[in-house]
Amino acid sequence: MAGNSIGQHFRVTTFGESHGLALGCIVDGCPPGLELTEADLQGDLDRRRPGTSRYTTQRREPDEVKILSGVFEGKTTGTSIGLLIENTDQRSKDYSDIKDKFRPGHADYTYHQKYGIRDYRGGGRSSARETAMRVAAGAVAKKYLRQEFGIEIRAYLAQMGDISIEKVDWAEIENNAFFCPDVDKVEQFDALIRDLKKQGDSIGAKIQVVATQVPVGLGEPVFDRLDADIAHALMSINAVKGVEIGDGFAVVQQKGSQHRDTLSPDGFGSNHAGGVLGGISTGQDIVANIALKPTSSITVPGDTITKAGEKTQLITKGRHDPCVGIRAVPIAEAMLAIVLMDHLLRHRGQNQNVTTETPKI
Amino acid sequence: MAGNSIGQHFRVTTFGESHGLALGCIVDGCPPGLELTEADLQGDLDRRRPGTSRYTTQRREPDEVKILSGVFEGKTTGTSIGLLIENTDQRSKDYSDIKDKFRPGHADYTYHQKYGIRDYRGGGRSSARETAMRVAAGAVAKKYLRQEFGIEIRAYLAQMGDISIEKVDWAEIENNAFFCPDVDKVEQFDALIRDLKKQGDSIGAKIQVVATQVPVGLGEPVFDRLDADIAHALMSINAVKGVEIGDGFAVVQQKGSQHRDTLSPDGFGSNHAGGVLGGISTGQDIVANIALKPTSSITVPGDTITKAGEKTQLITKGRHDPCVGIRAVPIAEAMLAIVLMDHLLRHRGQNQNVTTETPKI
Amino acid sequence: MAGNSIGQHFRVTTFGESHGLALGCIVDGCPPGLELTEADLQGDLDRRRPGTSRYTTQRREPDEVKILSGVFEGKTTGTSIGLLIENTDQRSKDYSDIKDKFRPGHADYTYHQKYGIRDYRGGGRSSARETAMRVAAGAVAKKYLRQEFGIEIRAYLAQMGDISIEKVDWAEIENNAFFCPDVDKVEQFDALIRDLKKQGDSIGAKIQVVATQVPVGLGEPVFDRLDADIAHALMSINAVKGVEIGDGFAVVQQKGSQHRDTLSPDGFGSNHAGGVLGGISTGQDIVANIALKPTSSITVPGDTITKAGEKTQLITKGRHDPCVGIRAVPIAEAMLAIVLMDHLLRHRGQNQNVTTETPKI
Amino acid sequence: MAGNSIGQHFRVTTFGESHGLALGCIVDGCPPGLELTEADLQGDLDRRRPGTSRYTTQRREPDEVKILSGVFEGKTTGTSIGLLIENTDQRSKDYSDIKDKFRPGHADYTYHQKYGIRDYRGGGRSSARETAMRVAAGAVAKKYLRQEFGIEIRAYLAQMGDISIEKVDWAEIENNAFFCPDVDKVEQFDALIRDLKKQGDSIGAKIQVVATQVPVGLGEPVFDRLDADIAHALMSINAVKGVEIGDGFAVVQQKGSQHRDTLSPDGFGSNHAGGVLGGISTGQDIVANIALKPTSSITVPGDTITKAGEKTQLITKGRHDPCVGIRAVPIAEAMLAIVLMDHLLRHRGQNQNVTTETPKI
Repeated sequence: MAGNSIGQHFRVTTFGESHGLALGCIVDGCPPGLELTEADLQGDLDRRRPGTSRYTTQRREPDEVKILSGVFEGKTTGTSIGLLIENTDQRSKDYSDIKDKFRPGHADYTYHQKYGIRDYRGGGRSSARETAMRVAAGAVAKKYLRQEFGIEIRAYLAQMGDISIEKVDWAEIENNAFFCPDVDKVEQFDALIRDLKKQGDSIGAKIQVVATQVPVGLGEPVFDRLDADIAHALMSINAVKGVEIGDGFAVVQQKGSQHRDTLSPDGFGSNHAGGVLGGISTGQDIVANIALKPTSSITVPGDTITKAGEKTQLITKGRHDPCVGIRAVPIAEAMLAIVLMDHLLRHRGQNQNVTTETPKI
Repeated sequence: MAGNSIGQHFRVTTFGESHGLALGCIVDGCPPGLELTEADLQGDLDRRRPGTSRYTTQRREPDEVKILSGVFEGKTTGTSIGLLIENTDQRSKDYSDIKDKFRPGHADYTYHQKYGIRDYRGGGRSSARETAMRVAAGAVAKKYLRQEFGIEIRAYLAQMGDISIEKVDWAEIENNAFFCPDVDKVEQFDALIRDLKKQGDSIGAKIQVVATQVPVGLGEPVFDRLDADIAHALMSINAVKGVEIGDGFAVVQQKGSQHRDTLSPDGFGSNHAGGVLGGISTGQDIVANIALKPTSSITVPGDTITKAGEKTQLITKGRHDPCVGIRAVPIAEAMLAIVLMDHLLRHRGQNQNVTTETPKI
Repeated sequence: MAGNSIGQHFRVTTFGESHGLALGCIVDGCPPGLELTEADLQGDLDRRRPGTSRYTTQRREPDEVKILSGVFEGKTTGTSIGLLIENTDQRSKDYSDIKDKFRPGHADYTYHQKYGIRDYRGGGRSSARETAMRVAAGAVAKKYLRQEFGIEIRAYLAQMGDISIEKVDWAEIENNAFFCPDVDKVEQFDALIRDLKKQGDSIGAKIQVVATQVPVGLGEPVFDRLDADIAHALMSINAVKGVEIGDGFAVVQQKGSQHRDTLSPDGFGSNHAGGVLGGISTGQDIVANIALKPTSSITVPGDTITKAGEKTQLITKGRHDPCVGIRAVPIAEAMLAIVLMDHLLRHRGQNQNVTTETPKI
Repeated sequence: MAGNSIGQHFRVTTFGESHGLALGCIVDGCPPGLELTEADLQGDLDRRRPGTSRYTTQRREPDEVKILSGVFEGKTTGTSIGLLIENTDQRSKDYSDIKDKFRPGHADYTYHQKYGIRDYRGGGRSSARETAMRVAAGAVAKKYLRQEFGIEIRAYLAQMGDISIEKVDWAEIENNAFFCPDVDKVEQFDALIRDLKKQGDSIGAKIQVVATQVPVGLGEPVFDRLDADIAHALMSINAVKGVEIGDGFAVVQQKGSQHRDTLSPDGFGSNHAGGVLGGISTGQDIVANIALKPTSSITVPGDTITKAGEKTQLITKGRHDPCVGIRAVPIAEAMLAIVLMDHLLRHRGQNQNVTTETPKI
């Protein structure tokens, strides 16, 4: 059943398998008049791309995106924008090992059960390769949000295994292969990854994504709340198992007198809420965390069954990240951008103006 | 903008303010032939209702639901089901204190900024009273899921403040006012609540919700994943700040060899995934956690501003739960039921059959 | 499956059967700040109501609407508006005759086949009584469109049987029971209806609905065109079998040089297009026609079958309009209002301004 | 705002301009296991293609479609199907004449007003070239409907100018360039077109589209009725100004005793309803008519204005059909197929079985 679209007013629909001919998407609802070229999208695609460092998978795809429609003389026309990335690295690999076995921890089993048929080449549609189009679509939203409202959306690696960052220096994030904002932790992350490679194992990660300069008033109670839609968008990223807004699970141990963000004529006194109250943006930074599971594509042998239901074992060979969470940084940014864009268009439809001058922390 | 609906195939749309004439909802898409009476809904409404114990708010509403349409001679007809609960406890209270002030930690400020107008009586639309209709609609879904597929959906209080349960005895949950499955913790919860009442403060909570006997194959990649839709539905509950599927944030510290659920001819070897792989149900239990913030309706004075932007202070008097999380138990069940129902109808539309005979842990 | 909603941004969802407890609807997405009372809705409800004249069915329902939510201190708050009409005329009628027979030309057979169960009392959900809620919801849209943009939406009876009007005097429409804008035809319509009553038969009708002062630019290519959405909304009215925009079926015989509406600095030279080009409003009047079939509720006996598949005959007794088309006048206005409202909010979300100063005929 | 999708359960989203790099679409929700190759789509694309005869525009495009995803080893996998047609005939034409003028009867003026920017090359997004992707997507639906349920969807030219067909011989339709089912009229159509070419003018057309073997029970009251969704889909085709179901506008002059389709144990006695009662399919043939306006792309000069608002005149040179209605035959089939497919999936989701054994005429 149709499930490959996100957003109602700014709607992104994607297609494409890991080892098919191409990946593509349609960005529907982008307002007219936005200057847009392939270069605007390529930057984030390159940040997401595998093979950019020794810490991520060595698959080499240029991931070169083409804009096929919706842009005329360098500007969006308000019509649907078609984007395409051809798969160039379809090396004729031997998939006989996973063709009839279900890799544990992967979507092999569920796709097989749901559809009765499964494109087993590299995970097919369930591969994280699909997220390339999210990043391309998100880059359209990011550009519009930045240009029209000064909204910036950035993410970073907050934790990998039991190593957590201790400070956030935004200027550092693009200086290392981990999107790590704490220069003092880079070496530890590096050591952890090298160690995992040796073990043939993988590790989970926590990413924080932040949007600044967000107008107050975005979000539609009671079901289409801004935070609910963010949770949906972030949980739809491959490998994500948890989403927090603001203080997240820490609130369980907080008292009301601690948690609530007081207000003064100068703005909010804190941002425990993560920029959303009652499902509507407060004008403060939107802050969300996501937890990404360790990839199951590891060389440690795992018990599983064949399509015929027989006991077997499996080793996932090939080019795989020991920490898929790292590459989720640009993906998380893209998903948050898509949600904010969607809500911004919804809100503007009703109210005619978008207020940004509000008390903030 | 329209935001009061959830679900595409089983769609619930609600209306109603805390102190308006009535709350109501329309349940659209319930299959025909389901036996349904008010009594089927009243049980969960009573579980959610305030005033049932000394631990929850003392507002006394019978919360008596009426079925206005969609049922004929005791069975659903396939047409839209109208549900109504009249507000009987609209005691003429003095709201002058909050009329022109924004309660910190509440949606007062964001509603005011978004809409320019605000029904300040008891929080209006942003009040948790709205969730009564979710529970009523969810009860329709619960009955269908149970009857047609044997699916059971149950939740419990897993943690309050720093007190966590240590065992889950499903039979205990309805025996205490906390929906606590660990009889040994009831007294501690009781003591904590009494202490908070004295302080005029409140506390957060963690709820776990579990669905059993879920068919394999529910969920539509890539955006309408089952886990993404669950995250959306649970995060849309008032006060929720975090959602986990399966191991949730614990995955950050897990290795792939630990996390992945192996398969054998007898089923899965574990359920770290929480019953969802690649956005599709595995046939195992669906397991989700939510974090609920401590209510901001406390008598500890809080700094805030008036509508005119002037500095002031506020005490929230009246009938309020020290732990709103407790009452979220039936609400979380209802939301999970609505999502599963929606996906079950979607899945069946495509595949004609719903498989339940699958290897499970 | 969920099918009782219309509109995405201004969304109306209805419930209720002909002889159930009540009819209701939720109007979701109405902007805040609109002054709204029951009186704003009652006028159109009274125009639609049966029993207002001897030409329409003698069922007597006050059709008194209550606003249950979404309005505070006389103004809309931006939250969902709950509307309710209680069914007071549920006279305990004998339905044994139609309980097990399918009335030819009615939805009895299709509802039975689709759902396997059918509320046979007065047609249940398939009764035109359902349209009362459309009229109530449409009245909200009409008020907003009029107040914010000066848009007026009016309909009239253009033809009944082979009697067509020959002139349109808007001032006459509310002066007669036929919504007839040609005072010279009223007597002929009257005679026709009296004749049909004697025969126990019924007749079809054509209604024209017109919106004036419509801003240019409403409508979203390529599928959500304004004219396509109007066609959807009007065809969803009970008994409608045809929809035309502008010249409609007359275009089949027109040449391009005749049909195209030329432009000059003073505006369009004609309005063959009916106010829509390429799916987008031109700023001219929106003009649409609908064809309504003669009701099948007649006393002329008709061949049919029983639920068991046996041959039988049926006479539909009771209170029925010989021309259901007449009462479609306020319904058509309501549906056009809902569509325009929806598109206006969509358009505004994207473009931030709504242009009304455009060349018009 | 997002408007380039149709369908909820079988959802088609398109992109592409007349003279852009490519046209494309995503077919989302096709059930798995359907054998599908490009050849299945190419047949209908060739029927729609311009340049196939001297009666239609001489633009020469191979319209070769590529399947980029969603099919594996010759079968659909249940994931989204990406389709692409590259534009090969982008001859560097001189558009200076229409760049700053609004062609009367075209969407130039409305696109300009709505978006403030316009791809003027060949009409850009408003060009009928966009319908190629509808035909490709519709071919997927047609194949599924035929294979799974034996549903056939066919259309023909029923009228052009004042020449109407007098008989329907389905075998003749593909034997002539007009999709004319009445061999005796072909010469008259031919003469009319030749005459119009000489005059530099164009003519309207009426198309009838019929679906046979349709299961009973498709359609969701009250707004998502089958006939309402058909009206939406058909009115969304370029140049369509009217839609009829069954007897359509003829019902205005019919009596109830004439119009209603009686039932007997052998089936319906007639099909005035066109296969839909109460918004639900009866199991009879679905019959719909559409009226297509004469194209405004003619060489008869027309008054218009420039972007600056100054009076001017325009002649539309180039390769244009004197009757765009002819090519609407495969497009109408495609749109009806998409709607039926969508409703079939919806219906099946709720009821688990699809009944086809019903009394029919």
